[in-house]
Amino acid sequence: MTRRAIDETLARYRAVRAQTVALAAPLAVDDQLAQSMPDASPTKWHLGHTTWFFEKMVLETFVSAYRPHRPDAAFTFNSYYESLGDRRPRAERSLSTRPTLDEAHAYRRAVDEAIAALSIDDAERALPRLEVGIQHEQQHQELVLTDVKSVLAPQGVAYVERTAERDAGTAPLRFEPFDGGLVEIGNAARDGFAFDNERPRHRVWLDPFAMGSRLVTAGEWLAFMEAGGYDDPALWLSDGWATKKAHGWRAPCYWRESPGGGWIEATMAGERAVVPSVPVCHVSYYEADAFARWSRARLPSEAEWEHALGGIAVGSNLLESGAFHPRAADAHAPIAQARGDAWEWTASPYAPYPRFVPFDGTLAEYNGKFMCNQFVLRGGSCFTPGSHLRPTYRNFFPPDARWQMSGVRLARWR
Amino acid sequence: MTRRAIDETLARYRAVRAQTVALAAPLAVDDQLAQSMPDASPTKWHLGHTTWFFEKMVLETFVSAYRPHRPDAAFTFNSYYESLGDRRPRAERSLSTRPTLDEAHAYRRAVDEAIAALSIDDAERALPRLEVGIQHEQQHQELVLTDVKSVLAPQGVAYVERTAERDAGTAPLRFEPFDGGLVEIGNAARDGFAFDNERPRHRVWLDPFAMGSRLVTAGEWLAFMEAGGYDDPALWLSDGWATKKAHGWRAPCYWRESPGGGWIEATMAGERAVVPSVPVCHVSYYEADAFARWSRARLPSEAEWEHALGGIAVGSNLLESGAFHPRAADAHAPIAQARGDAWEWTASPYAPYPRFVPFDGTLAEYNGKFMCNQFVLRGGSCFTPGSHLRPTYRNFFPPDARWQMSGVRLARWR
Amino acid sequence: MTRRAIDETLARYRAVRAQTVALAAPLAVDDQLAQSMPDASPTKWHLGHTTWFFEKMVLETFVSAYRPHRPDAAFTFNSYYESLGDRRPRAERSLSTRPTLDEAHAYRRAVDEAIAALSIDDAERALPRLEVGIQHEQQHQELVLTDVKSVLAPQGVAYVERTAERDAGTAPLRFEPFDGGLVEIGNAARDGFAFDNERPRHRVWLDPFAMGSRLVTAGEWLAFMEAGGYDDPALWLSDGWATKKAHGWRAPCYWRESPGGGWIEATMAGERAVVPSVPVCHVSYYEADAFARWSRARLPSEAEWEHALGGIAVGSNLLESGAFHPRAADAHAPIAQARGDAWEWTASPYAPYPRFVPFDGTLAEYNGKFMCNQFVLRGGSCFTPGSHLRPTYRNFFPPDARWQMSGVRLARWR
Amino acid sequence: MTRRAIDETLARYRAVRAQTVALAAPLAVDDQLAQSMPDASPTKWHLGHTTWFFEKMVLETFVSAYRPHRPDAAFTFNSYYESLGDRRPRAERSLSTRPTLDEAHAYRRAVDEAIAALSIDDAERALPRLEVGIQHEQQHQELVLTDVKSVLAPQGVAYVERTAERDAGTAPLRFEPFDGGLVEIGNAARDGFAFDNERPRHRVWLDPFAMGSRLVTAGEWLAFMEAGGYDDPALWLSDGWATKKAHGWRAPCYWRESPGGGWIEATMAGERAVVPSVPVCHVSYYEADAFARWSRARLPSEAEWEHALGGIAVGSNLLESGAFHPRAADAHAPIAQARGDAWEWTASPYAPYPRFVPFDGTLAEYNGKFMCNQFVLRGGSCFTPGSHLRPTYRNFFPPDARWQMSGVRLARWR
Repeated sequence: MTRRAIDETLARYRAVRAQTVALAAPLAVDDQLAQSMPDASPTKWHLGHTTWFFEKMVLETFVSAYRPHRPDAAFTFNSYYESLGDRRPRAERSLSTRPTLDEAHAYRRAVDEAIAALSIDDAERALPRLEVGIQHEQQHQELVLTDVKSVLAPQGVAYVERTAERDAGTAPLRFEPFDGGLVEIGNAARDGFAFDNERPRHRVWLDPFAMGSRLVTAGEWLAFMEAGGYDDPALWLSDGWATKKAHGWRAPCYWRESPGGGWIEATMAGERAVVPSVPVCHVSYYEADAFARWSRARLPSEAEWEHALGGIAVGSNLLESGAFHPRAADAHAPIAQARGDAWEWTASPYAPYPRFVPFDGTLAEYNGKFMCNQFVLRGGSCFTPGSHLRPTYRNFFPPDARWQMSGVRLARWR
Repeated sequence: MTRRAIDETLARYRAVRAQTVALAAPLAVDDQLAQSMPDASPTKWHLGHTTWFFEKMVLETFVSAYRPHRPDAAFTFNSYYESLGDRRPRAERSLSTRPTLDEAHAYRRAVDEAIAALSIDDAERALPRLEVGIQHEQQHQELVLTDVKSVLAPQGVAYVERTAERDAGTAPLRFEPFDGGLVEIGNAARDGFAFDNERPRHRVWLDPFAMGSRLVTAGEWLAFMEAGGYDDPALWLSDGWATKKAHGWRAPCYWRESPGGGWIEATMAGERAVVPSVPVCHVSYYEADAFARWSRARLPSEAEWEHALGGIAVGSNLLESGAFHPRAADAHAPIAQARGDAWEWTASPYAPYPRFVPFDGTLAEYNGKFMCNQFVLRGGSCFTPGSHLRPTYRNFFPPDARWQMSGVRLARWR
Repeated sequence: MTRRAIDETLARYRAVRAQTVALAAPLAVDDQLAQSMPDASPTKWHLGHTTWFFEKMVLETFVSAYRPHRPDAAFTFNSYYESLGDRRPRAERSLSTRPTLDEAHAYRRAVDEAIAALSIDDAERALPRLEVGIQHEQQHQELVLTDVKSVLAPQGVAYVERTAERDAGTAPLRFEPFDGGLVEIGNAARDGFAFDNERPRHRVWLDPFAMGSRLVTAGEWLAFMEAGGYDDPALWLSDGWATKKAHGWRAPCYWRESPGGGWIEATMAGERAVVPSVPVCHVSYYEADAFARWSRARLPSEAEWEHALGGIAVGSNLLESGAFHPRAADAHAPIAQARGDAWEWTASPYAPYPRFVPFDGTLAEYNGKFMCNQFVLRGGSCFTPGSHLRPTYRNFFPPDARWQMSGVRLARWR
Repeated sequence: MTRRAIDETLARYRAVRAQTVALAAPLAVDDQLAQSMPDASPTKWHLGHTTWFFEKMVLETFVSAYRPHRPDAAFTFNSYYESLGDRRPRAERSLSTRPTLDEAHAYRRAVDEAIAALSIDDAERALPRLEVGIQHEQQHQELVLTDVKSVLAPQGVAYVERTAERDAGTAPLRFEPFDGGLVEIGNAARDGFAFDNERPRHRVWLDPFAMGSRLVTAGEWLAFMEAGGYDDPALWLSDGWATKKAHGWRAPCYWRESPGGGWIEATMAGERAVVPSVPVCHVSYYEADAFARWSRARLPSEAEWEHALGGIAVGSNLLESGAFHPRAADAHAPIAQARGDAWEWTASPYAPYPRFVPFDGTLAEYNGKFMCNQFVLRGGSCFTPGSHLRPTYRNFFPPDARWQMSGVRLARWR
């Protein structure tokens, strides 16, 4: 049985690793080396970092004879692990011209071969770490796309060709009632893999509430803009108002005003006019919160979200199915009540669950140390690998982040 | 009965207003005009701002014939009310040389006289706003002290003379067990005045926990320092570690290393050697959180805090009793199990309670718009007016703030 | 004769010291404690710094029994002398609440008494340093006025009452021809006191040139503004254009657009409409240079200036004569061909003259270390003590400085 | 004769264009896309910018039927020409992932073909602009090397292989006397091509001086370091001292302390121990000036430099001869009295010569608008194309620049 588990894991390892490379394939070399801002990383860095993660967490830990493939990988590809030594400052990742992109691919292949050559004994001991590494690489697959979008979008460059897009219209927004009470959220051990921050499963008291039946659409956002939502400080958090002013925000990220009137959005399939029926995306927490206040509603807490939406079927998955195409990827087909169009800002600051226990050892730095100054997003986006669309998954970003696929779902008290 | 309520309120008005002036009395004019950093304000500004608050919220609102005492007060003394027009940027408050300090006192007297001259009818309508104004002024009394401490401490200047200080020793730290369960926190309407952010009273589920019997002491903090607590990133939140490095923190704010060894603390009675038995103070959330992790404990949530400590007797009050003196003010006499030595960082991000409703009108900006990027502190400090030491009171500051009287109480899971 | 020299110097010492105090007299205490920006200093700081200068350079150097009046003066009032130990960072001068303003005056009196009590022997040895100290204090008299103007002007507060102002009209601008050739500039030893940077007298080759007969007027500046001078990058230095955009400059400092049209200028006598006939003032080097280019002219070099204008009679002096009043101080009466209305930007970067020798000892830091990234201004302003209006005097400021009394004179090649 | 001039110019065009491509050949694609800091540019940008320069200044100006090769080239490759429209901010040049490097080479080829296809008439009219474009491209050849060195050096990556290096020892430093007097400097029209900033030839008065016989060596710099030169503020300009502290400078750029003692220098041939006999390089003006003061000498003015060294034979040229190799390129073989090892900081702020006339039209922005806040460097470096080593050539950089090949020659008064 262990043998089967190992085989199954290694098969997923190969598939996930190949998928990352496939995601980079449509890009020019130049696109893969640019870093648009400190928060985003070059594609090359993602390719290397995920590889370094397996090398450091699996090969160097469990294979006594293993020697690192490159001495400079630890400095170049360590993201934020203080316990693993010096690393290049985050804002300077594009300055690591070595390893080159070709060398980064050679690094990937060398580590893949070493993983394939794991002895049964080593593989068995490494199994939990292999699993974390696979999940970790899937997280970075989404980041490859969001980060490169921040490079391509301002240049109006497309990642894929646009296919025909049918505007299905927008279903009316309903607020579904929930009684709340003493509910349970979080991931139980029996549920299979989860990150440490999803656990333990625990009780939460919820007052009665109502949850929006779908995400807020671009058309509804246009109404907010036309109503002066970006100009009324009464709608905004104080920090949000200051941030909005400092950056001159007037619309979601990647929107620009058309010289002929109307708004144009940069998508992964290039620029097109904003489509009113699709979920709005690339808004910050501050904007989502202001929109909710303008709507005489609020953002849901993550417990409300998980209680109300945890059982809902997810949207069609893109990365996993290989069906990654512009309509799906970035055109936000209107899929009522589905998780997986855009990440949904919640009103919950990112904090540990009661009795939270971080991963062991080095991996203790994986999630816990970021539980401050961020907000939880739930659901998943059209960039998210399908197996990550689980109900208990907690994504998190600072309230001013806009380059992720972040949208809005409303909630209300009953 | 309304007449009695009015008389009672006006009597408290006079007492509180006089107390603010009394707090400034020991200061040189120079001390009252300096602004140590954007977060802190000059004493003169506090004197004017609290006065402007009454003028704007009471006199201009309820007295039709009232004309503002000075045309420049609105620009100079508006703190953050977007709905009330342009205002001087926060960081430049010391550049308002007009009104002068003398003129600010004249402004106070003019507004006090106008309040004293309120008709019964006006006073009755204004009563809730008068109450908010009084509570507001009391909040600024504490800020007068914390802000001027940030001016005096680096210069080694005393605000009061030191009286004999007896080191009472430190009681052993016990962790008192609590069963938790479905509990209620928050302020109910019948409890008298409360700020909007304390309401409504609502249910929260608490897992069983244990609460520290007293605040962490300076002696315990020294042990943390000697154990390398400031040098071990594994103890710190990621943002905390970056903040610590950027500022070069090695000890609480206002501590400096003595040339002859040991540590010296600047208190309101001037500098003295750190007293191990008194509660540590002037630490940021980041430091409090790192200390808790080093202690194999954690910070309590605000619900745990209120549930466990809400019924505990508070320490001797200082501002209210007129007994403000150095021992009490800033030497932190060890008072086991008392609220009121130092504000206690909780692990709770500052967020609205379920069904939170902001104050009406302009006062909607009082609390709600700050519910982001801050943490709740509970309890109160030796600078806090006694009537503010209520169990439901929610203080809040960003996690890097150190100039407030902020200390640490530990908690644990059971 | 030495005795007479000592008596004469001490008499000037008393007069100059009294003049500084007199300059502060019209100000509120609050005005004297504010620091508008890092480049400007509070009046209190000037009062203390000039005193510390005499204490450190004269009393501590030549009077063996002298003990510093206050231990904190060295930290508080040292401006930039690296050789004299730690000092408060320049940007934080308003945070020195001690010494208080009263204590600063007590400090002045104590040092004045110690200077008055100098023995003949000590005074004789100290004579050159006394002279430097007097000249130094006079330099700070001008800074007291320019720095406090930067506090008062944005508040629309007057330093003096306005007296009747007669618009004398503007003389036509002529360009007076000069042959140039091998000329001498700089201060010769026989000329009496000069700063080290004015020496030695040395030869310079000048091509034939023509010098403007008077300063550029506010009316001419308005024409530049109306012609789009602030919007045409072709007129500006690259650094100047970037600076202009960063600060949003559209007019000289202290000018603001009137709601009813036209421009209003904040002067030391309060605000008034811009008077077209008076010299424009409070412009940066960048603006002066752009104006000159727009005028198909250029700024003169300092050698041209000194050669052409060194023999011209100066304007009526203000500080010295006691006749300091609004017309003179800041209303710039049109005085054709007079030095002393406003400092005149030259095209000369501030650099040492050939064979420059700094002052001895500590005073080596007085001028030489600033010979970088600044431009020389010549002439003097209505704020300048009359004895400083000598032809060889070199004032210097960075090219973006606008809070000094800096104006424009044009020159051309022949 | 015009035909011959055209042919000669086009032959040089081809040679220079090919040389730029050859300089990039040893680099990985990754190296060519990185931007180490706002001041430096990616190699790809240099390849594109020099091409855009010919397209804009020659083809679009003189060939009526010419259409730009790429619509995005103007935005991407305009360096600083305000008159030519919007452009990517300098600090973000690495974010232009399109054109890709391949497309940039295609752009080069397309423009080269259009230049080759110029009609005789167009070529004749364009001849002066072609010449400027060639000279301009040669300037960028040096920048390709200095900018990519700033990418490679911190990574310890070599651009070329090191060849044997013979330490020839250091000739004693002599100070050669010059009488000065009324001399002429600057470029006369008959001297062939020169940039506008080198003209006109004009008279300058020089006091008698003495000029160092060779550049300061790394060994002499080590002595300065060991004598505490970086720790003594008395040696430094005020701005220099502040800059030094802010950056933590302790040695020239690209030097690092060896774990085993001694200093290591990153050169274009990789890292090696500092060689005492070669000229020191990569020092800022501030450091050069401090070194000179420590040496009881000074930096020469540019007029002194040109008068004393204008007739001296230059060192072996590297770029032009094709003999670019590590010894020559970056190991600074000791060549006494030769120009061309390293650029030499002068004490002269970069300013226009008397009667300076900028190039016509768009090219007016080429040099003149930068005549502020910079210092002139003379001579040339081992990275400089040989034909640029002319005696009147004026290079210029801000005083804190260290990534250029900037060294030190001393001078003294006689």
